[in-house]
Amino acid sequence: MAIALATKNVNEGLGGPFGAVIVRDGEVLAAEANSVTRTNDPTAHAEVNAIRAACAKLQSFQLEGCDVYTSCEPCPMCLAALYWSRCRTVFYGNTAKDAAEAGFDDSFLYDEIRLPAAQRSMPAEQMLSEEAIASFEAWRTSAQRIDY
Amino acid sequence: MAIALATKNVNEGLGGPFGAVIVRDGEVLAAEANSVTRTNDPTAHAEVNAIRAACAKLQSFQLEGCDVYTSCEPCPMCLAALYWSRCRTVFYGNTAKDAAEAGFDDSFLYDEIRLPAAQRSMPAEQMLSEEAIASFEAWRTSAQRIDY
Repeated sequence: MAIALATKNVNEGLGGPFGAVIVRDGEVLAAEANSVTRTNDPTAHAEVNAIRAACAKLQSFQLEGCDVYTSCEPCPMCLAALYWSRCRTVFYGNTAKDAAEAGFDDSFLYDEIRLPAAQRSMPAEQMLSEEAIASFEAWRTSAQRIDY
Repeated sequence: MAIALATKNVNEGLGGPFGAVIVRDGEVLAAEANSVTRTNDPTAHAEVNAIRAACAKLQSFQLEGCDVYTSCEPCPMCLAALYWSRCRTVFYGNTAKDAAEAGFDDSFLYDEIRLPAAQRSMPAEQMLSEEAIASFEAWRTSAQRIDY
């Protein structure tokens, strides 16, 4: 189903060749394709779209007990999103290497994220660390916080 | 501004202690806080929210020439999202280690993503690889594709 969504997305000119389906107890909670270019959203990968749709359906920010079927091994953004969602298992068709051969940056991003920050191609710089810690101090003592 | 957004988000009980601001040529394009629990969306980190808002404002799926100011070093999801957005530079206040000490999984996720897939705590399994490659073949030959 995820593969069919991916191919249909290309054939209809709606976005990249990626689809994802989220299932719990045999029920399909979400079935989404990539919509980066159609919705002007670089985060709108199939897995992210499916996580958002499944969470909206469940009215929950976690997907415990859910399995994710995706047409391609998740990129680092989607893999981390899947961890944050607390889903159970990921099943995938194509690999990150297949995606790279089709022109996508998945393998490059895995290499970048494995590097120490100072060696990555995107510059990142720490600033105002003494001021920034105040946000976490507020969090630690907040009476109304909802952990996630 | 990103730090102030993060602290305000906690003090108003709206979500986690994270804020992000995207700037281009001295103009603030987006200023967003974490909304995971409020919007039931585990992908709604401050950086992802800011990327989505800035892209909506620019009606573009890329953020060339944009700098991102975030109250905390991006988690792997947000870091990869920032790469996908093609933004220029990231400035951050707290570190992933600070986030871990405040109860967030950032450091754990960096460790997980650096592991070979088979050693990660979230099970992932390849299936239907021969069928899945059809999506990329459709992409390679598509006349209406928009590269991203």
